[in-house]
Amino acid sequence: MSYEAKLKEMGIVLPAVPKPVAAYVPAAVTGSYVYTAGQVPFVEGKIQFAGAVGKDLTLDEGAAAARICALNCLAAIREAVGSLDRIRRIVKLTAFVQSGPGFFDQPKVVNGASELIGQIFGEAGKHAREAVGVSNLPLNSAVEISVIAEIG
Amino acid sequence: MSYEAKLKEMGIVLPAVPKPVAAYVPAAVTGSYVYTAGQVPFVEGKIQFAGAVGKDLTLDEGAAAARICALNCLAAIREAVGSLDRIRRIVKLTAFVQSGPGFFDQPKVVNGASELIGQIFGEAGKHAREAVGVSNLPLNSAVEISVIAEIG
Amino acid sequence: MSYEAKLKEMGIVLPAVPKPVAAYVPAAVTGSYVYTAGQVPFVEGKIQFAGAVGKDLTLDEGAAAARICALNCLAAIREAVGSLDRIRRIVKLTAFVQSGPGFFDQPKVVNGASELIGQIFGEAGKHAREAVGVSNLPLNSAVEISVIAEIG
Repeated sequence: MSYEAKLKEMGIVLPAVPKPVAAYVPAAVTGSYVYTAGQVPFVEGKIQFAGAVGKDLTLDEGAAAARICALNCLAAIREAVGSLDRIRRIVKLTAFVQSGPGFFDQPKVVNGASELIGQIFGEAGKHAREAVGVSNLPLNSAVEISVIAEIG
Repeated sequence: MSYEAKLKEMGIVLPAVPKPVAAYVPAAVTGSYVYTAGQVPFVEGKIQFAGAVGKDLTLDEGAAAARICALNCLAAIREAVGSLDRIRRIVKLTAFVQSGPGFFDQPKVVNGASELIGQIFGEAGKHAREAVGVSNLPLNSAVEISVIAEIG
Repeated sequence: MSYEAKLKEMGIVLPAVPKPVAAYVPAAVTGSYVYTAGQVPFVEGKIQFAGAVGKDLTLDEGAAAARICALNCLAAIREAVGSLDRIRRIVKLTAFVQSGPGFFDQPKVVNGASELIGQIFGEAGKHAREAVGVSNLPLNSAVEISVIAEIG
């Protein structure tokens, strides 16, 4: 089954690609790779999860934010290369989690993104990953995620 | 017009490449790509903007720091490959901004780098980008930026 | 001398690859490159250095943590491609250091990783590098490091 069909089967409609809030592009294609910009949990121009996980937000809310970031990454990739079916491999996912004091469960938060990618892409979705806790993210976003994907 | 000529027209003289403060190199070339190290706002061996943006420094000072980081990235790329005219695409820019409490305008800070790259490289300068707020940066730098560039 | 032989000469036995604490893989291979996941200072399933450098841990402890992260990156690369002797170049090292207030010596901490790589790989170990201070890391790790390596 194609990834686009899988997405449809899962009932997922990718969001419109958020306009960059600055002088850059949502995704850059180079050779066999696409690099997305860091995507935040925007839906229709509004940040859905603002604040620090473990302080203002629960782990589950953080994971929901990570899932939206991943969808925005996929939307940016599709816009750049035409179809998710051109993806050969999700290579790398870099995730920053705005974290309250003493919160060390960044991996569980970022699973909200990684598990979605696993469901859509299966073997081709097995990615290397960084999960890092930080003090501040743009627009008070709870999570920011970027993706490197190999395309064919 | 070549990028080197454009730089001259803009009256920009790239700084000497800062000596790494540790056991690494300012830029590594692999295949068709150059990866720069994270560059801080060094000019002639001195950090120009120290402290946290939104606390010790204004947004404009942060943007000025980001611009210096970008120039240092370009200097590192030129040293590694001989000329900026070998650049085919600025692929990715990763930017960390030392941020005070409640400061969420990292994208505007990093525009100091992105806009400079746009002015020099035009279409070829359209890059994907991460902007992240952090608590601490080396030598109390306000900003740290690294670049991935495609070369020909 | 091969890198595997060099490792043996140095008396280093690479650790078992830590099982990812989430839905991803320790290293992803794509074309001529291996991307490792962010590795933390795990030894046999236990974090060896927990807390913030400059507050809970000394600079030397931080550097020791960075060295373990680098060994875990090499273990992940070997598991993914079969032998360290396939490495042509260590291209990039991205290092996050959990940092206490006012601690700005991240580069010295990360040297614990960079110097080890220099000893093992010599010229081929000359990498670009980011060193960044952050407020929180997974499982309260002192350091998290990922590597991009070119393979042949």
